[in-house]
Amino acid sequence: MAALEFRSDNCGRAAPELIQALVSANEGSVLGYGGDELTKQLHAHLSELFEHPVKVFPVPTGTGANALALAAVGSPFGAVYCSPEAHINTSECNATSFFGSGLKVTPVHGVDGKIDPLALDAAISNAGKGQAHKNQPEAINLVQATDMGAVYSVSEVTAISQVARAHGLTVHMDGARFANAVATLGCTPAELTWKAGVDILSFGVTKNGGLLTDAIVVFNPDIAKKMGFHLRRAGMIWSKMRFASAQILAYVQDDLWLRLARQSNTSALAIANGIKNLEGVKLIAPVQANELFVEMNPKAVDALISDNVLFYRRGPNLFRLVCRWDTTQDEIAQLIALVDRHRLKR
Amino acid sequence: MAALEFRSDNCGRAAPELIQALVSANEGSVLGYGGDELTKQLHAHLSELFEHPVKVFPVPTGTGANALALAAVGSPFGAVYCSPEAHINTSECNATSFFGSGLKVTPVHGVDGKIDPLALDAAISNAGKGQAHKNQPEAINLVQATDMGAVYSVSEVTAISQVARAHGLTVHMDGARFANAVATLGCTPAELTWKAGVDILSFGVTKNGGLLTDAIVVFNPDIAKKMGFHLRRAGMIWSKMRFASAQILAYVQDDLWLRLARQSNTSALAIANGIKNLEGVKLIAPVQANELFVEMNPKAVDALISDNVLFYRRGPNLFRLVCRWDTTQDEIAQLIALVDRHRLKR
Amino acid sequence: MAALEFRSDNCGRAAPELIQALVSANEGSVLGYGGDELTKQLHAHLSELFEHPVKVFPVPTGTGANALALAAVGSPFGAVYCSPEAHINTSECNATSFFGSGLKVTPVHGVDGKIDPLALDAAISNAGKGQAHKNQPEAINLVQATDMGAVYSVSEVTAISQVARAHGLTVHMDGARFANAVATLGCTPAELTWKAGVDILSFGVTKNGGLLTDAIVVFNPDIAKKMGFHLRRAGMIWSKMRFASAQILAYVQDDLWLRLARQSNTSALAIANGIKNLEGVKLIAPVQANELFVEMNPKAVDALISDNVLFYRRGPNLFRLVCRWDTTQDEIAQLIALVDRHRLKR
Amino acid sequence: MAALEFRSDNCGRAAPELIQALVSANEGSVLGYGGDELTKQLHAHLSELFEHPVKVFPVPTGTGANALALAAVGSPFGAVYCSPEAHINTSECNATSFFGSGLKVTPVHGVDGKIDPLALDAAISNAGKGQAHKNQPEAINLVQATDMGAVYSVSEVTAISQVARAHGLTVHMDGARFANAVATLGCTPAELTWKAGVDILSFGVTKNGGLLTDAIVVFNPDIAKKMGFHLRRAGMIWSKMRFASAQILAYVQDDLWLRLARQSNTSALAIANGIKNLEGVKLIAPVQANELFVEMNPKAVDALISDNVLFYRRGPNLFRLVCRWDTTQDEIAQLIALVDRHRLKR
Repeated sequence: MAALEFRSDNCGRAAPELIQALVSANEGSVLGYGGDELTKQLHAHLSELFEHPVKVFPVPTGTGANALALAAVGSPFGAVYCSPEAHINTSECNATSFFGSGLKVTPVHGVDGKIDPLALDAAISNAGKGQAHKNQPEAINLVQATDMGAVYSVSEVTAISQVARAHGLTVHMDGARFANAVATLGCTPAELTWKAGVDILSFGVTKNGGLLTDAIVVFNPDIAKKMGFHLRRAGMIWSKMRFASAQILAYVQDDLWLRLARQSNTSALAIANGIKNLEGVKLIAPVQANELFVEMNPKAVDALISDNVLFYRRGPNLFRLVCRWDTTQDEIAQLIALVDRHRLKR
Repeated sequence: MAALEFRSDNCGRAAPELIQALVSANEGSVLGYGGDELTKQLHAHLSELFEHPVKVFPVPTGTGANALALAAVGSPFGAVYCSPEAHINTSECNATSFFGSGLKVTPVHGVDGKIDPLALDAAISNAGKGQAHKNQPEAINLVQATDMGAVYSVSEVTAISQVARAHGLTVHMDGARFANAVATLGCTPAELTWKAGVDILSFGVTKNGGLLTDAIVVFNPDIAKKMGFHLRRAGMIWSKMRFASAQILAYVQDDLWLRLARQSNTSALAIANGIKNLEGVKLIAPVQANELFVEMNPKAVDALISDNVLFYRRGPNLFRLVCRWDTTQDEIAQLIALVDRHRLKR
Repeated sequence: MAALEFRSDNCGRAAPELIQALVSANEGSVLGYGGDELTKQLHAHLSELFEHPVKVFPVPTGTGANALALAAVGSPFGAVYCSPEAHINTSECNATSFFGSGLKVTPVHGVDGKIDPLALDAAISNAGKGQAHKNQPEAINLVQATDMGAVYSVSEVTAISQVARAHGLTVHMDGARFANAVATLGCTPAELTWKAGVDILSFGVTKNGGLLTDAIVVFNPDIAKKMGFHLRRAGMIWSKMRFASAQILAYVQDDLWLRLARQSNTSALAIANGIKNLEGVKLIAPVQANELFVEMNPKAVDALISDNVLFYRRGPNLFRLVCRWDTTQDEIAQLIALVDRHRLKR
Repeated sequence: MAALEFRSDNCGRAAPELIQALVSANEGSVLGYGGDELTKQLHAHLSELFEHPVKVFPVPTGTGANALALAAVGSPFGAVYCSPEAHINTSECNATSFFGSGLKVTPVHGVDGKIDPLALDAAISNAGKGQAHKNQPEAINLVQATDMGAVYSVSEVTAISQVARAHGLTVHMDGARFANAVATLGCTPAELTWKAGVDILSFGVTKNGGLLTDAIVVFNPDIAKKMGFHLRRAGMIWSKMRFASAQILAYVQDDLWLRLARQSNTSALAIANGIKNLEGVKLIAPVQANELFVEMNPKAVDALISDNVLFYRRGPNLFRLVCRWDTTQDEIAQLIALVDRHRLKR
């Protein structure tokens, strides 16, 4: 049986528009390190998209974006609060502390991969602000969509930002799947970021049709000031920057990014609708972006694997499915049929 | 007058073959983070190219390659010896110390951007090995071609490696312009690296027709062991790795990399031959790769700038010219004519 | 009313024997940085005390001892497991990550400030060993006595060491109150450390009659090899080392350290016995060293504060009492009387 | 023949006044971590001594003082300029980069261990301020007395501070032998520090009669703000701080520090006067503090060693002599006689 690919959005292809953008960008000589025309356009276009003057820093990976963003707003003595499931806490191999010279990642509980604002407020209040023994609360990391496939509403983001503001903390949004969240909420990018109190955003491109670049988008100009040095010492400023900027420009051109995100979101929702009421199948978090977290009997999960469905197993009876922008109707139908066939195995 | 571009090789275009490789790689779903077929081929092809089993780690930039390579072989208490002109010493914004947790860059003199092996031996011998007060000699960084446009011969590399071996140090080659050096010397990649005592290589792609990736090539398997963790915490493992590997595969396919390097080398040599005997013009280093370092009267340099020749000025009477793989005969002829026209201005 | 001091053991005096040792050490000229005779004796005496050849590194503080010990056994990609209440997790301002170049502190639950060995085994097993995305399990940190005033038995230490060994991890004991633990258990220092699987110990002196030094004691010679460099770059090798070594020698001479610990332990037990059965008073952890964690009504706690009892309040109805080696019978009696007087206030 | 001790000032005894201060400080219970009365007095006394409100942070070692001071004024992207002979450059095992998260030590030439202000100005001017490729000039490190035994005059310090100010840099003075410099110059501590443009001082105690503490003295209150966190994460805040503060208070009481420094200075000068005109003997730097750098024939140096004169040899024909506060007239006389006896050996 041919494999069914649900491992990760990063297993997918790049959108052809981004490849084409690389072809088009490969004309003539231009200044390196971001001194080119495309990179200038990038700042202008994203400022328009976000309805706010922003600084944009293309970076190779989401981990780079997160770690550089947090290093720009945190200190060696600081604490960054995040969800226990947050990518920075589980999957970035101490990158936050590395870039942040010791900056500590501190989980705060919540549901569906979110931070609970009351728990956050309590954690900050009890952190011992001003005491040298204690690392100091400095930043919040929100993952949007969350690492459990849920989406923070605008008001949920705002609630957390208000806690942050009340204590003098900065708000970072890890938007590895920011497009999926905007597509789900139907809000503007501005409403979900700076208007809701976000200071700095890891703007995901790779998982949603990109190839080799993501970006940091900075809403607060003070934060942007030293960013060039952060990037440089991290080896994250491409000399041929035009090829990164061209990708991001193509990504946001004519709402491509939202169209791609809607495709993967719709696929995930179709799967959810196809399996959520089946006996033996349980979705453990809301399906609001392109990921599903599914519980089934271990034997049923084994059977899916045997049938060449590709996904990450998170435990004996838990697995994650991720849809890509180019996941097909046929793949979805096959997957649902296989889940249905195996779900009662025990 | 149209601009004449001699600022940097990174101002140039990518080779069309590499762009085409991206188009070709964009088929189907593959495992992320280097689990794809192209990345597997990459290890095989470069092992063949280097006549040695190597580990290859694509990384976004040369600074990333250098800093990760040195962090993999140096400790927080260590010293890396390099030329005063070395890129790691002058242009990477403390990246070596950042990735190396304090690892110190220590210049040793020499000529034409090279390390003098006797000076190196003396520096290591007097470094206070084993004394806790002293940082400890751990690695050598050779830039090939050098930051002055010269090329280490195989025997010069060997001489330095022998000093390194005698003292238990590791040898890193910053090969941002490795292709240019191999093209000049006419040796094999193996002869210039592991056969000459090099343990780990920053394998430059970007400056010589690449877009968005360089690579670390590790000859010593012990060094490679922890490299994955180094890359991950540095945010330097692309999830869609196939698009990086595809570039590098295309780069070495059918000796493309050497053809491109020969083109830029030949251009530089043509300029050198056109101006070196002119009164008022002085080349301050051998032209053995694609860079020229030229001294002229300040007024003459001013005049070139006024005539829209683009280059980096290193002082009132010193400037650098860099040729690209696609520098044209016409550009060369125009440049020589302008130098000739202005050289006696004072 | 005169203040009753129960804030911390570090509020107390030094034992006169240690002061006298400084007077005695101040004779003649000796080599610096540990090249003196007293420091040589230190290694010999502690090797005898621990029935094992050990390396001893005097360091100014317990935080320094912990952070240097963990940096010596952990890597930038690593995780150190500890109790949520562990000093390294709550009170050292990111020191572990600082000295360990990003090394992450990862809490594992348990009771009374201890690590639960089953929870530890599960945490390590699920940590994703070998996956570059995940920081790698490298070390365990046990606090003895714990930060809740309890003591790990020898078999409890052994149980945790066995988990560590099974997974290839190193065991560090934060022995800020090691003397108190040994005094309580009546075992030998060897039984509680290397015989139970401990590789490296922060040997507390300051809290138990010291002035200005603690020490790192290394049982595993491989770990000790680079320690001198760790200390030096951390600015933690005193040039006049004899004055640190002299303190530690006096501390262990004729079992002084155990006599002092027994005094503070006995004081804590006397308080516990005096208040544990009183209505309105609750001890929330076993009193096995020199600390008590007491719950009373907020009003009752307020009243103690008003009566000039000095301690750290950990919440509205929770406070910590710490006994010193020189806490007096009279202080204990006064404290018990005041607790009794105020305990029913509400 | 009994040994003649000229290895280092840190081989010497503590002044009895400082030991006595420890005895006196060992009374009663006091708050830890600097909350005690002696530490409060310390701030007041040093503010008076320096005729300026200062913040004082006792730290265990001079390396700690230097590294913490520089980390407080420099960034991960920064450069600290110093003399090639400066202790931070030669003898602190990468501590500046460690504490400063990558902060780079950059030597600037001069004579007698000093920085040349013109060379400094040129280095900063050519450093590429504002360019992300370049680490950024942030601080100056002056060693007073220098590592060659010379002393910066007030006007020399001022000249360097003016360069620093003109470029927006901070001035740190490594005053490991600050007392010796003040004693030589006969100026006030204020004149040699903040009045001459120094922002932060490593105030040496250990080498000049101290035991286990030096101090950081901060003249610029902005710099002091985060110092507590720097110290805490570095494990450099003693819990029983009174015993450090007591040493420093005794050190400056009744000008003890200057009396001790005058003694060692006078001894060094006596040696200089005794040997400087002897054939075969050459002093390679001015003797303005308590150190002498002497050139003699290798055979002559060998003969001194054979006669049990203790010192550090810096090369076949170069050695350093250091006088202590308690170096005796007899030791001086013996040394001069031995130099005279052996100087013509070849």
